[in-house]
Amino acid sequence: MIKVVLLGFGNVNSHLLKAFNKSDEISVVQIFNRNYIKMISPFSAISFTDSISEIANADIYIIGIPDDAISNFSASLHFKNKLVVHTSGGAAMDVLSSKNRRGIFYPLQTFSKQRSVDFTNIPICIEAENPQDLDLLQQLGSVISKNVKIISSEKRTKLHLAAVFVNNFVNYLYQIGSEIVTKEDLPFELLKPLIAETALKIEALSPKEAQTGPAKRNDNKTIEKHLHLLEDNDFKDFYKLFTTALRER
Amino acid sequence: MIKVVLLGFGNVNSHLLKAFNKSDEISVVQIFNRNYIKMISPFSAISFTDSISEIANADIYIIGIPDDAISNFSASLHFKNKLVVHTSGGAAMDVLSSKNRRGIFYPLQTFSKQRSVDFTNIPICIEAENPQDLDLLQQLGSVISKNVKIISSEKRTKLHLAAVFVNNFVNYLYQIGSEIVTKEDLPFELLKPLIAETALKIEALSPKEAQTGPAKRNDNKTIEKHLHLLEDNDFKDFYKLFTTALRER
Ligand SMILES: NC(=O)c1ccc[n+]([C@@H]2O[C@H](COP(=O)([O-])OP(=O)(O)OC[C@H]3O[C@@H](n4cnc5c(N)ncnc54)[C@H](OP(=O)(O)O)[C@@H]3O)[C@@H](O)[C@H]2O)c1
Ligand SMILES: NC(=O)c1ccc[n+]([C@@H]2O[C@H](COP(=O)([O-])OP(=O)(O)OC[C@H]3O[C@@H](n4cnc5c(N)ncnc54)[C@H](OP(=O)(O)O)[C@@H]3O)[C@@H](O)[C@H]2O)c1
Repeated sequence: MIKVVLLGFGNVNSHLLKAFNKSDEISVVQIFNRNYIKMISPFSAISFTDSISEIANADIYIIGIPDDAISNFSASLHFKNKLVVHTSGGAAMDVLSSKNRRGIFYPLQTFSKQRSVDFTNIPICIEAENPQDLDLLQQLGSVISKNVKIISSEKRTKLHLAAVFVNNFVNYLYQIGSEIVTKEDLPFELLKPLIAETALKIEALSPKEAQTGPAKRNDNKTIEKHLHLLEDNDFKDFYKLFTTALRER
Repeated sequence: MIKVVLLGFGNVNSHLLKAFNKSDEISVVQIFNRNYIKMISPFSAISFTDSISEIANADIYIIGIPDDAISNFSASLHFKNKLVVHTSGGAAMDVLSSKNRRGIFYPLQTFSKQRSVDFTNIPICIEAENPQDLDLLQQLGSVISKNVKIISSEKRTKLHLAAVFVNNFVNYLYQIGSEIVTKEDLPFELLKPLIAETALKIEALSPKEAQTGPAKRNDNKTIEKHLHLLEDNDFKDFYKLFTTALRER
């Protein structure tokens, strides 16, 4: 039985709680949050504290708070020589205070309060200062996911950078698409089957193989027409940048 | 029973054939293609011609060839006063020769030979010069899709433009993501659950509500770090453009 304390209770840690709670091999013994949170059913039995000096004893402490708060927060912990990990893709392992044994438990996924998550296929990127801790993190990750990977801080940062492109930036293109159709009084729903298929396609084809469209075909007539149709100058800049890149590759 | 002749046999028309063939209400009486194509089982019974003067009689002729070839090709047809439609999102209805009754049958989806397609939820955008033809296209579309919409050439062009953003450009971001991780000897597979969830998220949340990430949070430390990590200058340009746009909106 692995005993876990969750430090912070935002998107990531609340989803981790749900996933851990499904297993008999993990016991979440306590939640800490600097502000009071009422633990609701089925989690009402889990002890909660907002006092940093009353954090319970555990095998692993998981910090799930914003990246820029991790360093100070980890330094403010009262205990030492325990395994303390953070869940960030972008922050290095050494932002954690060295008074504890350090590690990473980064689930490569986008989490929000409103959506439930199935961890089975989510890559969990782990790292630790010492081999026993790495083993324990491997064990913890394997309980919720089939996809636990040991990845260095350096590679994890690149992975996180790639994630920004395929998640945040992709989502912004969805927003541009939505704005273009909404302006024509057309429902964004019309684009959803295309969005779904575009994402599904790369399960079987590489993005390069899957690429189609006017830029790829060098269809200059359509490109000129599109640039003319785009009223928003920002959208024009996006169109030009993508078109140039797609033509060159 | 609606009699259909398919003119051209590329991605779109070959998928339409499969969908039409499932229904008793549609009979594909002939395929025309300028080059010979051997019709294979279960389509071996369908007549094929590569001679434009031998095109059979039908209720609807569907041209599925590249946009810039539609105009000349439709002018080269030997018959007149028949209902002839094209399947392009970007080309106007009047690129079709006026010697026939003109219309549009645009399936808003990305098609490739390798992937099978379920038309049920695919929006079919239709348009026609006269009401009876529009009715017939509505009937034809409804056999394969629950989502047939009457949309003017003007709005269809905007829809197609939006499709370029959420399909071609999104796919290019997948390619950038793939290149970043491949360079680190990490498998592109790691990003796939994130890509899938990013597309799924907007089924329930608007893209604006779904947006997260360093730019949205104004996390300048991470943004600077990312720009530093990006070695490819093109990728840097993309990063900057998205980050500026996301900060402003
Ligand atoms: N969200 C994602 O999609 C995602 C995915 C992978 C990894 N991550 C990483 O996971 C970590 C947590 O992200 P998240 O999205 O779960 O964050 P979040 O929802 O914004 O987390 C907020 C939590 O952090 C606490 N907090 C904020 N500032 C704090 C401070 N200065 N000191 C102590 N606690 C503080 C908040 O406490 P109060 O309730 O008291 O404000 C709250 O419990 C980050 O490192 C992030 O990079 C996030
Ligand atoms: N692919 C998509 O995702 C998609 C989605 C929605 C709409 N559309 C639209 O559907 C139409 C067809 O697209 P597609 O992707 O199916 O095209 P495609 O696969 O490239 O179609 C090629 C077909 O067009 C024929 N063709 C090419 N040039 C021709 C010419 N000058 N004269 C006569 N036939 C010619 C080819 O004949 P040969 O075999 O003899 O070369 C072949 O049958 C286009 O208007 C496109 O904009 C495409």
